[in-house]
Amino acid sequence: MIIADRELVESGSDDILQDAQDKDIAFLVVGDPFGATTHTDLVLRARELSIAVQSIPNASILNAIGTTGLQLYNFGQTVSMVFFTDTWRPSSFYDRIKENISIGLHTLVLVDIKVKEQSYEDMARGRKVYQPPRYMTVAQCAGQMLEIEEERKEEVYSSDSLAIGAARVGSREQRLACGTLRELSEADLGPPLHSLVLLGKRAHDLERDYIRAFAINTDSFDASWKKYHST
Amino acid sequence: MIIADRELVESGSDDILQDAQDKDIAFLVVGDPFGATTHTDLVLRARELSIAVQSIPNASILNAIGTTGLQLYNFGQTVSMVFFTDTWRPSSFYDRIKENISIGLHTLVLVDIKVKEQSYEDMARGRKVYQPPRYMTVAQCAGQMLEIEEERKEEVYSSDSLAIGAARVGSREQRLACGTLRELSEADLGPPLHSLVLLGKRAHDLERDYIRAFAINTDSFDASWKKYHST
Repeated sequence: MIIADRELVESGSDDILQDAQDKDIAFLVVGDPFGATTHTDLVLRARELSIAVQSIPNASILNAIGTTGLQLYNFGQTVSMVFFTDTWRPSSFYDRIKENISIGLHTLVLVDIKVKEQSYEDMARGRKVYQPPRYMTVAQCAGQMLEIEEERKEEVYSSDSLAIGAARVGSREQRLACGTLRELSEADLGPPLHSLVLLGKRAHDLERDYIRAFAINTDSFDASWKKYHST
Repeated sequence: MIIADRELVESGSDDILQDAQDKDIAFLVVGDPFGATTHTDLVLRARELSIAVQSIPNASILNAIGTTGLQLYNFGQTVSMVFFTDTWRPSSFYDRIKENISIGLHTLVLVDIKVKEQSYEDMARGRKVYQPPRYMTVAQCAGQMLEIEEERKEEVYSSDSLAIGAARVGSREQRLACGTLRELSEADLGPPLHSLVLLGKRAHDLERDYIRAFAINTDSFDASWKKYHST
């Protein structure tokens, strides 16, 4: 049996494991199987039930982001960005970025996707009606980053900090755009999925040469590079 | 034409690019194409010659190491460990680990491989004779890490710091061993390729539950976890 439903592993992992006592079960995921805590948890539960598990590594945005030309060994911890609402604007990503910046490292920012979400009203009434899927864009991500810097004012980054927006990484329609956070907050990179990388200070000249080709504006790129990254 | 020789890209990339003016060239690598600076440089040179390049992401040790159960978003920068000689014992890895440790993150240590190496004598005499291949083991890596801590004494880690040795990741013969650096410096994980992960302080209980199953000695594991990682 082959299982490839993200929702199922979160809500119905007992069913998956029940069958695995007697059958071979293949569980397919997008990206690497251990990119998500949910899957680690699933293996742990299988282990408790003495079910043997074999995992097969796969490409993941965590390493495919190397296509930007930024060196993977210069990345710090990865952070996530959720859609802000009027009442929920979590900024823990800002603290993690601050840590990465403090030691000169790049930060990969993974952006929110909302699939099979219910409205509060439908949820309250028990209606299985779902909102249209929403995928955060590089522009929204950059915009929310600037909002939080505006709020916290710890100068972790600024509107002219350099970042790279990456869209549809690994597909033939892949697109990269390098610019300041202000520029990226106004950029349109087309259909999902998007990701963003904020550059660390320890960027290398080879990285500069590579990413300059994706610059939205080479003048502002050169100015920001000189300001923040030249040694 | 398909090219899959690591040496060729380092010494003969001009030949590769020469042909690429007229032909489709596939260049195969182990791991992700952008895991190595060499490949970024090759794309840069292709770009200068107006040769279109399409890259295909692949699994890499940088994300396959998630098979240890340590969460990939808790990793800091990746470091490399070379074979020490009597006169060459580079310790820049120690500074990078210190940075990762300072913000609580895990560190993946990639270990040296020596393939097609010449002895100084053969090189001097221009003899194309190569040494047998050498692959660093987890035990050697842990041993060299302890040597440098002994030398620098900055208490970045100690002989009872927890780490995970990973061998042949992604193969059916994959093997994981979790223990203190002292234990790992005496562990035999079998044939190559090996890697090591030094745990950061910010390790999560889910990670503990997962990796405890690979403990060389559960008593020393529990003691070290309590000392360094419990919150």
